Amino acid sequence: MKSKRIAVVVSAALLAGIAAEALAQQKPENYVRFRKANQQVVAFHMRELAPIVKSAKPDIAEATRVANVVATLAPVFAHGFPAGTGDGDTRARPEIWSQPDKFKQAMDRYIGEANKMLEVARSGNADGMRTQFGTLSKACDSCHDDFRRK
Amino acid sequence: MKSKRIAVVVSAALLAGIAAEALAQQKPENYVRFRKANQQVVAFHMRELAPIVKSAKPDIAEATRVANVVATLAPVFAHGFPAGTGDGDTRARPEIWSQPDKFKQAMDRYIGEANKMLEVARSGNADGMRTQFGTLSKACDSCHDDFRRK
Repeated sequence: MKSKRIAVVVSAALLAGIAAEALAQQKPENYVRFRKANQQVVAFHMRELAPIVKSAKPDIAEATRVANVVATLAPVFAHGFPAGTGDGDTRARPEIWSQPDKFKQAMDRYIGEANKMLEVARSGNADGMRTQFGTLSKACDSCHDDFRRK
Repeated sequence: MKSKRIAVVVSAALLAGIAAEALAQQKPENYVRFRKANQQVVAFHMRELAPIVKSAKPDIAEATRVANVVATLAPVFAHGFPAGTGDGDTRARPEIWSQPDKFKQAMDRYIGEANKMLEVARSGNADGMRTQFGTLSKACDSCHDDFRRK
Protein backbone atom coordinates (compact mmCIF):
# COMPACT_ATOMS: atom_id res chain seq x y z
CA MET A 1 0.00 0.00 0.00
CA LYS A 2 2.86 2.35 0.82
CA SER A 3 4.46 1.94 -2.61
CA LYS A 4 1.08 2.55 -4.22
CA ARG A 5 0.65 5.78 -2.26
CA ILE A 6 4.13 6.91 -3.28
CA ALA A 7 3.31 6.12 -6.89
CA VAL A 8 0.15 8.23 -6.65
CA VAL A 9 2.05 11.14 -5.10
CA VAL A 10 4.77 10.92 -7.77
CA SER A 11 2.18 10.75 -10.56
CA ALA A 12 0.38 13.79 -9.14
CA ALA A 13 3.65 15.68 -8.98
CA LEU A 14 4.49 14.71 -12.56
CA LEU A 15 1.04 15.76 -13.72
CA ALA A 16 1.37 19.07 -11.90
CA GLY A 17 4.72 19.58 -13.64
CA ILE A 18 3.23 18.81 -17.02
CA ALA A 19 0.26 21.06 -16.33
CA ALA A 20 2.57 23.94 -15.36
CA GLU A 21 4.56 23.46 -18.54
CA ALA A 22 1.40 23.30 -20.63
CA LEU A 23 0.12 26.49 -19.02
CA ALA A 24 3.34 28.27 -19.92
CA GLN A 25 2.68 27.42 -23.56
CA GLN A 26 0.02 28.76 -25.87
CA LYS A 27 -3.00 26.97 -27.28
CA PRO A 28 -2.30 24.53 -30.15
CA GLU A 29 -4.37 26.66 -32.55
CA ASN A 30 -2.12 29.64 -31.76
CA TYR A 31 0.86 27.59 -32.91
CA VAL A 32 -0.93 26.61 -36.12
CA ARG A 33 -1.78 30.26 -36.87
CA PHE A 34 1.75 31.34 -36.02
CA ARG A 35 3.33 28.68 -38.29
CA LYS A 36 1.14 29.69 -41.22
CA ALA A 37 1.82 33.38 -40.66
CA ASN A 38 5.56 32.76 -40.37
CA GLN A 39 5.46 30.76 -43.61
CA GLN A 40 3.64 33.64 -45.37
CA VAL A 41 6.19 36.20 -44.24
CA VAL A 42 9.03 33.96 -45.48
CA ALA A 43 7.24 33.29 -48.80
CA PHE A 44 6.69 37.04 -49.30
CA HIS A 45 10.40 37.66 -48.83
CA MET A 46 11.42 34.77 -51.10
CA ARG A 47 9.25 36.44 -53.77
CA GLU A 48 11.04 39.73 -53.00
CA LEU A 49 14.40 38.02 -53.35
CA ALA A 50 13.67 36.26 -56.67
CA PRO A 51 13.82 39.32 -58.99
CA ILE A 52 16.76 40.77 -57.05
CA VAL A 53 18.99 37.73 -57.47
CA LYS A 54 17.92 37.33 -61.10
CA SER A 55 18.84 40.90 -62.05
CA ALA A 56 22.11 41.51 -63.92
CA LYS A 57 23.41 43.65 -61.05
CA PRO A 58 21.66 42.71 -57.80
CA ASP A 59 21.02 45.45 -55.21
CA ILE A 60 23.28 44.11 -52.45
CA ALA A 61 21.76 46.19 -49.64
CA GLU A 62 18.23 45.11 -50.53
CA ALA A 63 19.27 41.47 -51.07
CA THR A 64 20.91 41.49 -47.63
CA ARG A 65 17.88 43.08 -45.97
CA VAL A 66 15.49 40.54 -47.48
CA ALA A 67 17.78 37.52 -46.94
CA ASN A 68 18.18 38.59 -43.30
CA VAL A 69 14.41 38.29 -42.77
CA VAL A 70 14.42 34.79 -44.29
CA ALA A 71 17.45 33.71 -42.23
CA THR A 72 16.00 35.13 -39.01
CA LEU A 73 12.63 33.46 -39.49
CA ALA A 74 14.00 30.00 -40.31
CA PRO A 75 14.79 29.04 -36.69
CA VAL A 76 11.65 30.88 -35.54
CA PHE A 77 9.61 28.59 -37.80
CA ALA A 78 11.41 25.54 -36.36
CA HIS A 79 10.01 26.52 -32.93
CA GLY A 80 6.44 26.24 -34.23
CA PHE A 81 5.92 22.49 -33.92
CA PRO A 82 5.82 21.42 -30.26
CA ALA A 83 4.14 18.08 -29.49
CA GLY A 84 0.35 18.33 -29.44
CA THR A 85 0.02 20.91 -32.21
CA GLY A 86 -0.67 18.51 -35.09
CA ASP A 87 -4.47 18.74 -35.11
CA GLY A 88 -6.95 21.30 -36.43
CA ASP A 89 -6.70 23.46 -39.51
CA THR A 90 -3.17 22.43 -40.46
CA ARG A 91 -1.40 20.67 -43.33
CA ALA A 92 1.37 19.47 -41.00
CA ARG A 93 1.94 15.72 -41.45
CA PRO A 94 2.12 13.41 -38.39
CA GLU A 95 5.66 12.45 -39.52
CA ILE A 96 6.83 15.74 -37.96
CA TRP A 97 6.25 14.14 -34.56
CA SER A 98 6.66 10.43 -35.41
CA GLN A 99 10.04 11.00 -37.14
CA PRO A 100 11.49 13.87 -35.08
CA ASP A 101 15.10 13.19 -36.11
CA LYS A 102 14.26 13.32 -39.80
CA PHE A 103 12.22 16.51 -39.26
CA LYS A 104 15.03 18.13 -37.29
CA GLN A 105 17.48 17.24 -40.06
CA ALA A 106 15.22 18.87 -42.68
CA MET A 107 14.78 21.99 -40.51
CA ASP A 108 18.51 22.24 -39.85
CA ARG A 109 19.18 22.00 -43.59
CA TYR A 110 16.67 24.81 -44.22
CA ILE A 111 18.19 27.00 -41.49
CA GLY A 112 21.69 26.33 -42.86
CA GLU A 113 20.76 27.21 -46.45
CA ALA A 114 18.94 30.36 -45.29
CA ASN A 115 22.08 31.45 -43.40
CA LYS A 116 24.22 30.74 -46.48
CA MET A 117 21.80 32.86 -48.55
CA LEU A 118 22.39 35.77 -46.18
CA GLU A 119 26.17 35.29 -46.34
CA VAL A 120 26.26 35.26 -50.14
CA ALA A 121 23.88 38.25 -50.34
CA ARG A 122 26.27 40.20 -48.11
CA SER A 123 29.23 39.14 -50.29
CA GLY A 124 27.50 40.64 -53.33
CA ASN A 125 28.45 37.71 -55.59
CA ALA A 126 25.63 37.73 -58.18
CA ASP A 127 26.25 34.19 -59.49
CA GLY A 128 26.53 32.90 -55.94
CA MET A 129 23.22 34.55 -55.02
CA ARG A 130 21.42 32.92 -57.95
CA THR A 131 22.85 29.47 -57.16
CA GLN A 132 22.12 29.74 -53.43
CA PHE A 133 18.58 31.00 -54.07
CA GLY A 134 17.96 27.78 -56.04
CA THR A 135 19.51 25.62 -53.30
CA LEU A 136 17.45 27.33 -50.60
CA SER A 137 14.24 26.96 -52.63
CA LYS A 138 14.96 23.24 -52.97
CA ALA A 139 15.41 22.95 -49.18
CA CYS A 140 11.96 24.58 -48.75
CA ASP A 141 10.37 22.23 -51.30
CA SER A 142 12.02 19.15 -49.84
CA CYS A 143 10.56 19.80 -46.39
CA HIS A 144 7.13 20.59 -47.84
CA ASP A 145 7.20 17.34 -49.86
CA ASP A 146 7.96 15.23 -46.79
CA PHE A 147 6.16 17.02 -43.99
CA ARG A 148 3.27 19.01 -45.45
CA ARG A 149 0.06 17.65 -46.92
CA LYS A 150 -0.78 18.65 -50.51
CA MET B 1 2.79 70.82 -82.19
CA LYS B 2 6.41 70.11 -81.42
CA SER B 3 6.00 70.85 -77.72
CA LYS B 4 2.94 68.59 -77.63
CA ARG B 5 4.91 65.72 -79.19
CA ILE B 6 7.69 66.22 -76.65
CA ALA B 7 5.12 66.16 -73.85
CA VAL B 8 3.69 62.89 -75.19
CA VAL B 9 7.17 61.32 -75.42
CA VAL B 10 8.04 62.49 -71.90
CA SER B 11 4.73 61.16 -70.52
CA ALA B 12 5.30 57.80 -72.22
CA ALA B 13 8.80 57.62 -70.73
CA LEU B 14 7.45 58.49 -67.27
CA LEU B 15 4.72 55.87 -67.59
CA ALA B 16 7.27 53.26 -68.69
CA GLY B 17 9.36 54.14 -65.64
CA ILE B 18 6.40 53.83 -63.32
CA ALA B 19 5.40 50.52 -64.93
CA ALA B 20 8.92 49.14 -64.49
CA GLU B 21 8.92 50.12 -60.84
CA ALA B 22 5.48 48.61 -60.33
CA LEU B 23 6.59 45.37 -61.97
CA ALA B 24 9.51 45.14 -59.58
CA GLN B 25 7.06 45.17 -56.67
CA GLN B 26 4.52 42.58 -55.63
CA LYS B 27 0.75 42.81 -55.96
CA PRO B 28 -1.00 45.02 -53.37
CA GLU B 29 -2.87 41.98 -51.96
CA ASN B 30 0.49 40.28 -51.33
CA TYR B 31 1.48 43.24 -49.15
CA VAL B 32 -1.80 43.05 -47.25
CA ARG B 33 -1.34 39.32 -46.60
CA PHE B 34 2.27 39.87 -45.61
CA ARG B 35 1.40 42.67 -43.17
CA LYS B 36 -1.27 40.57 -41.48
CA ALA B 37 1.03 37.54 -41.28
CA ASN B 38 3.86 39.65 -39.87
CA GLN B 39 1.49 41.10 -37.28
CA GLN B 40 0.41 37.56 -36.26
CA VAL B 41 3.99 36.39 -35.80
CA VAL B 42 4.74 39.45 -33.65
CA ALA B 43 1.52 38.98 -31.61
CA PHE B 44 2.39 35.30 -31.03
CA HIS B 45 5.78 36.30 -29.67
CA MET B 46 4.37 39.08 -27.50
CA ARG B 47 2.10 36.41 -25.98
CA GLU B 48 5.21 34.23 -25.49
CA LEU B 49 7.01 37.12 -23.81
CA ALA B 50 4.18 38.07 -21.40
CA PRO B 51 4.48 35.11 -18.98
CA ILE B 52 8.29 35.19 -19.18
CA VAL B 53 8.62 38.82 -18.10
CA LYS B 54 5.93 38.36 -15.43
CA SER B 55 7.67 35.39 -13.80
CA ALA B 56 9.63 35.98 -10.57
CA LYS B 57 12.86 34.86 -12.30
CA PRO B 58 12.59 35.34 -16.07
CA ASP B 59 14.40 32.87 -18.35
CA ILE B 60 16.91 35.30 -19.88
CA ALA B 61 17.85 33.09 -22.84
CA GLU B 62 14.20 32.54 -23.80
CA ALA B 63 13.30 36.20 -23.20
CA THR B 64 16.19 37.22 -25.48
CA ARG B 65 15.22 34.71 -28.19
CA VAL B 66 11.59 35.88 -28.22
CA ALA B 67 12.42 39.62 -27.95
CA ASN B 68 14.85 39.19 -30.86
CA VAL B 69 12.00 37.99 -33.09
CA VAL B 70 9.88 41.00 -32.11
CA ALA B 71 12.79 43.43 -32.65
CA THR B 72 13.70 41.89 -36.02
CA LEU B 73 10.14 41.98 -37.32
CA ALA B 74 9.42 45.59 -36.31
CA PRO B 75 11.33 47.18 -39.26
CA VAL B 76 10.12 44.35 -41.52
CA PHE B 77 6.55 45.36 -40.70
CA ALA B 78 7.38 49.00 -41.46
CA HIS B 79 8.24 47.92 -45.03
CA GLY B 80 4.73 46.59 -45.57
CA PHE B 81 2.95 49.81 -46.45
CA PRO B 82 4.09 51.12 -49.85
CA ALA B 83 1.76 53.55 -51.65
CA GLY B 84 -1.11 51.79 -53.41
CA THR B 85 -1.58 49.03 -50.84
CA GLY B 86 -4.43 50.62 -48.88
CA ASP B 87 -7.35 48.87 -50.57
CA GLY B 88 -8.86 45.42 -50.29
CA ASP B 89 -9.20 43.21 -47.23
CA THR B 90 -7.27 45.49 -44.88
CA ARG B 91 -7.89 47.50 -41.72
CA ALA B 92 -5.14 49.97 -42.62
CA ARG B 93 -6.42 53.55 -42.36
CA PRO B 94 -5.80 56.04 -45.21
CA GLU B 95 -3.92 58.23 -42.67
CA ILE B 96 -0.94 55.88 -43.18
CA TRP B 97 -0.50 57.45 -46.61
CA SER B 98 -2.06 60.89 -46.06
CA GLN B 99 0.05 61.58 -42.92
CA PRO B 100 3.30 59.77 -43.77
CA ASP B 101 5.41 61.75 -41.27
CA LYS B 102 3.09 60.91 -38.39
CA PHE B 103 3.02 57.23 -39.48
CA LYS B 104 6.81 57.10 -39.75
CA GLN B 105 7.10 58.62 -36.28
CA ALA B 106 4.79 55.95 -34.84
CA MET B 107 6.69 53.17 -36.63
CA ASP B 108 10.05 54.52 -35.47
CA ARG B 109 8.76 54.61 -31.89
CA TYR B 110 7.62 50.98 -32.18
CA ILE B 111 10.97 49.91 -33.66
CA GLY B 112 12.85 51.79 -30.93
CA GLU B 113 10.81 50.24 -28.09
CA ALA B 114 11.20 46.75 -29.62
CA ASN B 115 14.97 47.23 -29.72
CA LYS B 116 14.96 48.43 -26.10
CA MET B 117 12.95 45.31 -25.16
CA LEU B 118 15.70 43.15 -26.68
CA GLU B 119 18.40 45.11 -24.85
CA VAL B 120 16.73 44.79 -21.47
CA ALA B 121 15.96 41.07 -22.07
CA ARG B 122 19.68 40.50 -22.73
CA SER B 123 20.58 42.44 -19.58
CA GLY B 124 18.42 40.06 -17.53
CA ASN B 125 16.94 42.88 -15.41
CA ALA B 126 13.54 41.44 -14.41
CA ASP B 127 11.98 44.76 -13.34
CA GLY B 128 13.31 46.42 -16.49
CA MET B 129 11.77 43.66 -18.65
CA ARG B 130 8.35 44.11 -17.06
CA THR B 131 8.45 47.90 -17.46
CA GLN B 132 9.69 47.75 -21.03
CA PHE B 133 7.13 45.11 -21.98
CA GLY B 134 4.43 47.58 -20.86
CA THR B 135 6.02 50.45 -22.78
CA LEU B 136 6.35 48.34 -25.94
CA SER B 137 2.73 47.17 -25.67
CA LYS B 138 1.63 50.80 -25.42
CA ALA B 139 3.59 51.64 -28.59
CA CYS B 140 1.73 48.81 -30.38
CA ASP B 141 -1.65 50.03 -29.10
CA SER B 142 -0.93 53.65 -29.96
CA CYS B 143 -0.23 52.83 -33.61
CA HIS B 144 -3.28 50.57 -33.82
CA ASP B 145 -5.48 53.32 -32.34
CA ASP B 146 -4.32 55.87 -34.92
CA PHE B 147 -3.73 53.81 -38.04
CA ARG B 148 -5.88 50.66 -37.86
CA ARG B 149 -9.64 50.46 -38.20
CA LYS B 150 -11.56 48.85 -35.30
